[in-house]
Amino acid sequence: MNRDKVRVGVIGATGYSGVELMRILSQHPHVVITYVAGNHHEERALSLEHPYLPGFSNLTMETYQPEIAIERCDALFVALPSGRSGEIAGELWRAGKVVIDLSGDLRLPGALYEQWYAHPAVRQELVDHAVYGLTEWRRDLVRQATLVANPGCYATAVLLALLPLYAANLVPPEQPLIVDAKSGVSGAGRKATAASMLAELGENFYAYKVGQHQHTPEIESQLAQAGFRGRLLLTTQLLPCTRGIFVSAYIQPQSPIDDADVQAAFLNRYRDEPFITVHAPGEYPQLKHVRGSNRCHIGYRMDARTGVLQVFSVLDNLQKGAAGQAVQNFNVMHGFAEGEALAGLPVYP
Amino acid sequence: MNRDKVRVGVIGATGYSGVELMRILSQHPHVVITYVAGNHHEERALSLEHPYLPGFSNLTMETYQPEIAIERCDALFVALPSGRSGEIAGELWRAGKVVIDLSGDLRLPGALYEQWYAHPAVRQELVDHAVYGLTEWRRDLVRQATLVANPGCYATAVLLALLPLYAANLVPPEQPLIVDAKSGVSGAGRKATAASMLAELGENFYAYKVGQHQHTPEIESQLAQAGFRGRLLLTTQLLPCTRGIFVSAYIQPQSPIDDADVQAAFLNRYRDEPFITVHAPGEYPQLKHVRGSNRCHIGYRMDARTGVLQVFSVLDNLQKGAAGQAVQNFNVMHGFAEGEALAGLPVYP
Amino acid sequence: MNRDKVRVGVIGATGYSGVELMRILSQHPHVVITYVAGNHHEERALSLEHPYLPGFSNLTMETYQPEIAIERCDALFVALPSGRSGEIAGELWRAGKVVIDLSGDLRLPGALYEQWYAHPAVRQELVDHAVYGLTEWRRDLVRQATLVANPGCYATAVLLALLPLYAANLVPPEQPLIVDAKSGVSGAGRKATAASMLAELGENFYAYKVGQHQHTPEIESQLAQAGFRGRLLLTTQLLPCTRGIFVSAYIQPQSPIDDADVQAAFLNRYRDEPFITVHAPGEYPQLKHVRGSNRCHIGYRMDARTGVLQVFSVLDNLQKGAAGQAVQNFNVMHGFAEGEALAGLPVYP
Amino acid sequence: MNRDKVRVGVIGATGYSGVELMRILSQHPHVVITYVAGNHHEERALSLEHPYLPGFSNLTMETYQPEIAIERCDALFVALPSGRSGEIAGELWRAGKVVIDLSGDLRLPGALYEQWYAHPAVRQELVDHAVYGLTEWRRDLVRQATLVANPGCYATAVLLALLPLYAANLVPPEQPLIVDAKSGVSGAGRKATAASMLAELGENFYAYKVGQHQHTPEIESQLAQAGFRGRLLLTTQLLPCTRGIFVSAYIQPQSPIDDADVQAAFLNRYRDEPFITVHAPGEYPQLKHVRGSNRCHIGYRMDARTGVLQVFSVLDNLQKGAAGQAVQNFNVMHGFAEGEALAGLPVYP
Repeated sequence: MNRDKVRVGVIGATGYSGVELMRILSQHPHVVITYVAGNHHEERALSLEHPYLPGFSNLTMETYQPEIAIERCDALFVALPSGRSGEIAGELWRAGKVVIDLSGDLRLPGALYEQWYAHPAVRQELVDHAVYGLTEWRRDLVRQATLVANPGCYATAVLLALLPLYAANLVPPEQPLIVDAKSGVSGAGRKATAASMLAELGENFYAYKVGQHQHTPEIESQLAQAGFRGRLLLTTQLLPCTRGIFVSAYIQPQSPIDDADVQAAFLNRYRDEPFITVHAPGEYPQLKHVRGSNRCHIGYRMDARTGVLQVFSVLDNLQKGAAGQAVQNFNVMHGFAEGEALAGLPVYP
Repeated sequence: MNRDKVRVGVIGATGYSGVELMRILSQHPHVVITYVAGNHHEERALSLEHPYLPGFSNLTMETYQPEIAIERCDALFVALPSGRSGEIAGELWRAGKVVIDLSGDLRLPGALYEQWYAHPAVRQELVDHAVYGLTEWRRDLVRQATLVANPGCYATAVLLALLPLYAANLVPPEQPLIVDAKSGVSGAGRKATAASMLAELGENFYAYKVGQHQHTPEIESQLAQAGFRGRLLLTTQLLPCTRGIFVSAYIQPQSPIDDADVQAAFLNRYRDEPFITVHAPGEYPQLKHVRGSNRCHIGYRMDARTGVLQVFSVLDNLQKGAAGQAVQNFNVMHGFAEGEALAGLPVYP
Repeated sequence: MNRDKVRVGVIGATGYSGVELMRILSQHPHVVITYVAGNHHEERALSLEHPYLPGFSNLTMETYQPEIAIERCDALFVALPSGRSGEIAGELWRAGKVVIDLSGDLRLPGALYEQWYAHPAVRQELVDHAVYGLTEWRRDLVRQATLVANPGCYATAVLLALLPLYAANLVPPEQPLIVDAKSGVSGAGRKATAASMLAELGENFYAYKVGQHQHTPEIESQLAQAGFRGRLLLTTQLLPCTRGIFVSAYIQPQSPIDDADVQAAFLNRYRDEPFITVHAPGEYPQLKHVRGSNRCHIGYRMDARTGVLQVFSVLDNLQKGAAGQAVQNFNVMHGFAEGEALAGLPVYP
Repeated sequence: MNRDKVRVGVIGATGYSGVELMRILSQHPHVVITYVAGNHHEERALSLEHPYLPGFSNLTMETYQPEIAIERCDALFVALPSGRSGEIAGELWRAGKVVIDLSGDLRLPGALYEQWYAHPAVRQELVDHAVYGLTEWRRDLVRQATLVANPGCYATAVLLALLPLYAANLVPPEQPLIVDAKSGVSGAGRKATAASMLAELGENFYAYKVGQHQHTPEIESQLAQAGFRGRLLLTTQLLPCTRGIFVSAYIQPQSPIDDADVQAAFLNRYRDEPFITVHAPGEYPQLKHVRGSNRCHIGYRMDARTGVLQVFSVLDNLQKGAAGQAVQNFNVMHGFAEGEALAGLPVYP
């Protein structure tokens, strides 16, 4: 028996974030996975259902039942679609479990949530108790949390790239913020849709949810804590590939700044962060440099011709944008080394 | 014999734009291709060299020799790398030929050219005589031209999307213009480089020539003719696919405008343009909707929350962004129906 | 009015073969498309539904109704899923129309059909009247046909590659025939399935319907007409791309043959075929060499070490493997030039 | 200091196998990487040269110098191109080091090598001392080896799939063996070539080195040890993706066998092998099920209609086909747990 290991459950283990959670947790020395559940109704051995998840010979995909989850687990990751995930996270948390919810359900006040997500919010009490788990910026709160709202993939990429600049007062807080963001299709989840077919998306690129992406208010509310008082125009676009978020942000500083100012603002915050690389001026991040890892790479350039500051950031939407950051939070919550199970290098090429 | 057909030569017939020229011209009822040349030194039957160019059984790839080109052709497309193309275009044009140059060599005044292209410019006289062939906006000049500087791929996508707005005074002429542009890798040409390998670029995305892309001054100088007096920040990024340019432009109008104003500005210019589709509000272009065709699709959205106007445009970089527009200009120059050989629908999926 | 044009309808105009039919037919000088129908229940302008099908401003996608199809059309292409397509094709044909059915419904005797397709066959009378439209091998029958069963995509690639060898008695007729075939995902149709999503199929490759693909009996019965008396093992595998069939066939000749024998057998049949290229020994076909065109390229190698003859063939599954060959048959049936509307070169790159 | 760790060098650290070695070794608890070298002439910090290899802040890419390699390392992986790699491996081995060579240089007797590789072989003495490191079949020899010839990627996939069948006498030893193999492009290495560009290989598929792939004699000579006395026809084909080998083998058993016989032969050998999964009849491997992992999945089907046995196998060419198996051998040679640093699950999707 693994008496000294945390007994962990994954709810939503067949979605892409769930699969990535399994992949990461299987490397974790202080974790034993004791429960995997999804929306399926027939039970089936996990390794039969998912041949790319070998080695969990003892696990069976089950249909979620709260009493079993509660009995078998100390901590749970809930990675179901928004609208269903938060409710289950709340149920488990109220039963005294440590819970990390990967959906958008616990990230926004109810009124804002309902405006952008177009379905009913969970009870406000839950949202109030949930700590927004942008680990590098909320480490102290996460450490004491028992319920974490894991950040969205776009939100993580934008916030890691821009929080240092607002926090350092380098950029004008009221100016509308323009973010041109691109994502691999795994961010859209595992449900089969016409738009996500290879025949449609291969050799394609397009914007979706234009002006209406639900990470918009999440980013605005988090940036506000660093002084941002404007509005965000977040353009989300689909790349013909599977993994990765690439963000290009454009800001027009109102007082003159140069590359050294920007570099200082980033290093001030990230010098000792193991998962963040800040490129020197003239070097820029690439999507594939972080694929399969929990890393975020950031680059920037102050364009003297136009006076516009460009900031680029990349991460793997299923890792630092979802499952990786969730495990990072789990580690902080349990007092484990923050990088436990997350040290894997990017898969290149 | 095809006495009444225009005898056409293609210089640079092995590059991607050259191959696309062959594909288009093979459908042209008033054209006979009489000469194909490249940088090769061994002559070889074209259909052996390029199995995807069947049906030119009479043609041999030759090494370019001006006297032969002049003797055999009435009109020539020159699609060589910048730095070599314009010189040859000039040589042929001075010999009395109708010439369309697909490189950047004839698009900019010498000083500006040398600043952005980092090699010597052609003689200014040539540039002065060359008409910038953005067909929809220069039809009358092209009609009388014998030397055309065919626009760049990014430039075509940006100009078609933004000229109507500046021309209609809908957007502030001094404001820095932010254009986030994405391209398939065929735009980088056929030369083998590490960065364009499938193992590197597949599942990847990144910015290149950040703040330094040579289409920047081309776009600025053309937009200036519609009143633009600002500077452009053009961010060029590489998509993990072969064909297509996708442009996202961001402008902050200073007086209140709405979707109807924008729609009017576009339709005013493009209502009767056969190769341009302007989407209704709420519909947006996709890269693949135009692949393999000479079309440009445009969409837009006035974001009331931030006051930012987004404009999207897509085209196939080898067609409307190169060979297609070149043939369109050729048709105008010769008085043929403008869409001759260009009516092919996009290849979907 | 286009009184002298054939009034053509496309049933199944939203599927990939249907879209390709529209693309090809739009270039046909003797065709006017008068009817497009599918399984949809709301009518919608075609160019709104499919932005990649511009230029059909007069056409509306309709829900199929036989009386309207019959009234408006002289000839019809039916490109619905097997199980539904043949029945409609029969209905229209019995009403006196010229009909080309792109499904598998009319290609096999009923008993064989039901064994491999797992749903009921159409009436045998229909199958008996339908001419199997492998144009290069059935031109004379097609010329007199009013009902054509258009061959399957895998079947076309295999038959064009192997019929010449069986017909020339170069290969042993009883030997089991091994065909290792690969297809782009568009061959699986437009229905959204988990397996055809980019996140699943990108960077993937696998066999499907192993030993059970329904083109197996189609190929066997057609090869039998050239003397084949064995059984076919057809392995169908999915490529991480959109278009194309690539076939690798392996045969062990029992009497010694060499490359010249094989070349002779191919050229004997295909020397004057405009859509077929037979590569010289040492040159091999590539999927992309034919993409977007109605062409089939064939290569081969007699391996002296093992005594095995390898034959490779490629085609675009939506063109020569479906819509292109259908139009080729249409041309033959109407006495038009066989290549009318089919002269487009491959889209490369 | 890491006195109790093995000091490891990687020669060829910039190639794809080298990068994968670094990724794997970075997770190894008993390894410290003390030397990385390549063909470069300027030294540069590894993490600057390869942003996807963060965390090696102490390492500098150096130009290979034997005396430094010998001084700094206990064990070395040599992953240079064939023709250069074996010689260096020999040099280091003769200096008393533990050496694993990933090239083809030590896998074949000299005469055979020169026939298939078209350059001079290393000294026969080296080949004689090198153990062919197909771990699952040579564990005992590897355990005592100090010089290992790591198997080729195609060879590993074919041998793991077929050795059990020949060893069990299930398939006729003299029959020519037909193997239709497909590989992602990373197998071709990192050198930029026209054929490996995304614009050429994307949406493409084709055979290369037809009948001439250098893994042919490697496979034949290894199969011979299990009784194979025939010849192999190995068809190698390039997939439009980055990683993975997919093998389809076709054999015609001469005495009747069924699925149970095949299953028994596989399980007899692989029941306890942690890196090998044998699928039950009716389930087949997929390329992506093993990507990024050291696993090999095998499936098969006895086709009763034709009497042909199909066998499929998949692996990641950079892992089990190169760097992963190399580390597996390293572990066996050093008496570490065989799966040390190799437990990572496949990256899916």
